[in-house]
Amino acid sequence: MRIFVILAHKAALTHEFSLNDMPGGAGRLDVLCRCVTASFCLSHGIRKDVHVFLVLQNQLVIRLHGETLRHLNPDERSTGALLQKALKIQSECVGTEEVESTTGIFISKKNLAQLLEEFRAKSIQIVQLHEAGTSLRETELPKECAFFLSDHMEFDPSEDELLSNGLRLNLGPKSLHADHCITLMHNELDLRGL
Amino acid sequence: MRIFVILAHKAALTHEFSLNDMPGGAGRLDVLCRCVTASFCLSHGIRKDVHVFLVLQNQLVIRLHGETLRHLNPDERSTGALLQKALKIQSECVGTEEVESTTGIFISKKNLAQLLEEFRAKSIQIVQLHEAGTSLRETELPKECAFFLSDHMEFDPSEDELLSNGLRLNLGPKSLHADHCITLMHNELDLRGL
Repeated sequence: MRIFVILAHKAALTHEFSLNDMPGGAGRLDVLCRCVTASFCLSHGIRKDVHVFLVLQNQLVIRLHGETLRHLNPDERSTGALLQKALKIQSECVGTEEVESTTGIFISKKNLAQLLEEFRAKSIQIVQLHEAGTSLRETELPKECAFFLSDHMEFDPSEDELLSNGLRLNLGPKSLHADHCITLMHNELDLRGL
Repeated sequence: MRIFVILAHKAALTHEFSLNDMPGGAGRLDVLCRCVTASFCLSHGIRKDVHVFLVLQNQLVIRLHGETLRHLNPDERSTGALLQKALKIQSECVGTEEVESTTGIFISKKNLAQLLEEFRAKSIQIVQLHEAGTSLRETELPKECAFFLSDHMEFDPSEDELLSNGLRLNLGPKSLHADHCITLMHNELDLRGL
């Protein structure tokens, strides 16, 4: 199972935005849509062995589960519509319990620390995709791990602190978009047969 | 200069489509938008050393020139709007001459064979990103080359024939989207310092 966690710093916390203005009114939800596409979409297929967690403003988590995921198309607008549906039912969330919005997509009221606690309980290790990390191609990866990425903004100091006991990986000499990092990560794992 | 050529088999040949329906009414223009983003967009910057040619149904070519390109944002919708503007002025095209629609974006009436003739005249070699190719990581690349990709459809036999005197590269064991291939190609070139 490949796990990607994207920390979204400005993303909308309600469904009250226009799909015509995801970069603006939805707080760069377009970035998250592209991350979802990069995580799951193959040419004419879905990667089933993938789990994606979108952490919105450290308050909400939208989880997408490849094994059961339905209705996902590669374009940004239709993915945005799926995320909007998840945001629409958040009032049904009690405590940190998840509610399923469409098949394979779940929302819960949870912050990064709580998510990390869940990972720790399952012995899932932290791998931060970070410009200051060691070179991906020269690094052996933990067997069970989650890859953490930041959206269009840098990891903030409190996030860096929470992730500080993990591995840091650098993917190359250029500063890349989060979705491009996911594509590179998948390819490396594909080539390693992991 | 890194050159990417994307062969689009169904993409709209007119501007008469809705930006709300790029996967449908615009003939998978969303695929081309993602290819443009992958070609040019870095985190908070544009790759200036990139040239993209979108070949629409073997009839029109939209060329995007990184050196002068303006108004490009990473989201699909705004990129779609730029391509739509290019399609809108195609009636001004005479012969195979280009017309500029917005800064750094040009349209012309040209087919793949004519584009290849231009490349040949400039000694630009053909590299086809193709599942049946040799492994990218183990292959030395020509100094001056153009990378050819197909959109959501396979290269058709006439395209394979036109590109047959080039190199074929395989990027990994999975069948990937064209934009993901561009991201991988950029990363490999970045890591090689090319």
